[in-house]
Amino acid sequence: MSTYKQTCTNLLELSNSKVTEWLASFDTVITDCDGVLWIYGNALEGSVDVMNQFKAMGKKIYFCTNNSTKTRAELLKKGLELGFRITEEGIISTAHATAAYLKQRKFDKRVYVIGSEGITQELDKVGIKHTQCGPDPMQGPLGEFMAQHLKLDTDIGAVVVGFDEHFSFPKMMKAASYLNDPKCLFVATNTDECFPMPNMVVPGSGSFVKAIQTCSERTPTVIGKPNPAICESLLNPKKIDPARTLMIGDRANTDILLGFNCGFQTLLVGSGIHHLSDVDQWRKSKDPEDKKLIPDLYLPKLGDLLPAIVNSQTGGSY
Amino acid sequence: MSTYKQTCTNLLELSNSKVTEWLASFDTVITDCDGVLWIYGNALEGSVDVMNQFKAMGKKIYFCTNNSTKTRAELLKKGLELGFRITEEGIISTAHATAAYLKQRKFDKRVYVIGSEGITQELDKVGIKHTQCGPDPMQGPLGEFMAQHLKLDTDIGAVVVGFDEHFSFPKMMKAASYLNDPKCLFVATNTDECFPMPNMVVPGSGSFVKAIQTCSERTPTVIGKPNPAICESLLNPKKIDPARTLMIGDRANTDILLGFNCGFQTLLVGSGIHHLSDVDQWRKSKDPEDKKLIPDLYLPKLGDLLPAIVNSQTGGSY
Repeated sequence: MSTYKQTCTNLLELSNSKVTEWLASFDTVITDCDGVLWIYGNALEGSVDVMNQFKAMGKKIYFCTNNSTKTRAELLKKGLELGFRITEEGIISTAHATAAYLKQRKFDKRVYVIGSEGITQELDKVGIKHTQCGPDPMQGPLGEFMAQHLKLDTDIGAVVVGFDEHFSFPKMMKAASYLNDPKCLFVATNTDECFPMPNMVVPGSGSFVKAIQTCSERTPTVIGKPNPAICESLLNPKKIDPARTLMIGDRANTDILLGFNCGFQTLLVGSGIHHLSDVDQWRKSKDPEDKKLIPDLYLPKLGDLLPAIVNSQTGGSY
Repeated sequence: MSTYKQTCTNLLELSNSKVTEWLASFDTVITDCDGVLWIYGNALEGSVDVMNQFKAMGKKIYFCTNNSTKTRAELLKKGLELGFRITEEGIISTAHATAAYLKQRKFDKRVYVIGSEGITQELDKVGIKHTQCGPDPMQGPLGEFMAQHLKLDTDIGAVVVGFDEHFSFPKMMKAASYLNDPKCLFVATNTDECFPMPNMVVPGSGSFVKAIQTCSERTPTVIGKPNPAICESLLNPKKIDPARTLMIGDRANTDILLGFNCGFQTLLVGSGIHHLSDVDQWRKSKDPEDKKLIPDLYLPKLGDLLPAIVNSQTGGSY
């Protein structure tokens, strides 16, 4: 167990020797991507150097994202282009993990996909049949649509829901109708609620999942963080030691909670969704679920760790 | 308090004199429409006669629907065409009640509507500005859409969500962005989850509401059943006596729960969503919320009451 268990200790306030000691306390780093390593196409300042330093120190590195719109190959390409030294095996994504989940359960029917090509391409890679993604808008009045345009496919055995910018009423109606059969599986890539931006809010997969959950009156299997299912390939068989694994993230209810659920050390960075003010709220809250969101450690941004890492390797003052 | 409080007594099993006694125990009838009085365009067998008999007996009659797609005038027209003797004042609808809710609070900004013309026409009637309903599909890739097509209106002061067959990602994004301002009101006409049909499931307003609730991280004011807000005009000022009011419905978590919340007598009819098998589940459940769903009385369909009513008036055997 980490010395800093759920203390939200600011790494910038630790002494030189304490940081060196902490750096030796883990040998695996699992990190979220958006908001930690990059924001859209741009690497966050210092994040590439910090991650590559971790790798140079001999630590195992995994990028772990709830983003269901990209395949592992696409995420690898993006990471390499930004300068991260990462391999495809080092990428854990919900699109890939969802396909792996179905494959492992020998799923042999067809998947109704609410999502994007990240999901359909990963399904293709493991040979699972699926519907196509893209627009499916309402056609004509409701009565006419139900009578003439609603075509249900009898071979559907699972509904997978991820981020879908073409989410629509016909998709909701099809998903709810397929899920009316209790044998039809209901899998959600992740339940991230939204992505707040300066002048707008982008809905996250979680809002599509809640819509389908409500109209189908079914509860999905959630693959993404904070569900340990996303780390299934690391934890079982035991590729990593949870107590010597550091989870880094910017969203507490996915990244930090995954760390809590798996027994990892946790580091919250303030370059994305959650900040110290949120941690203060969870400290004051009486809800035990909120307590799980408090990280062991905190940094304004991952790049802030660079001087400490360099210092710990050269023995200089921090 | 009703003699049959939450006993789910089958009216068909009561003696002649008990039915006559029960008929005298209420002087107001509030009834749900879809699944009780009619299904789509067709009146359910005997429902017209029973409701008109209630009226002939001097009881006050209210039709109370969570359907947000129709105005009071449209519901009146439908009721009259099917043969029900009803007036516009006897129609309680979520579209009308939502407009009344905003008007009463002297709302003077513009409403962003996710819903249909039932809502916009009721807003027009009370002089409240609003956006138009209809299709708002995704245009181009997400990045391009956000940069070029997402036009936010600075005059929006409320987001109203009802049933919308043109529900789409751009609508979700706009609603979540408006609701990012904590001063922007969030009003849901109702939270009905879905409408199961023989070979398909039609998503209900509740599924759109949950989607917006999730991506906006806001909790809506719900106007419709089971929220007593829908009866605001009857209860305050006191137009009716709750103890002498009978609530009839086919959906326990809206109709019967409204009756529970308002202190009405309750009658579940088995011609729609919920049946005796559901009541059995709630009896067995340990969740106190489930207990609230158990009705006082039960009938397979409203029309089954006709012989008993006729009999009680003629004094014959039931």
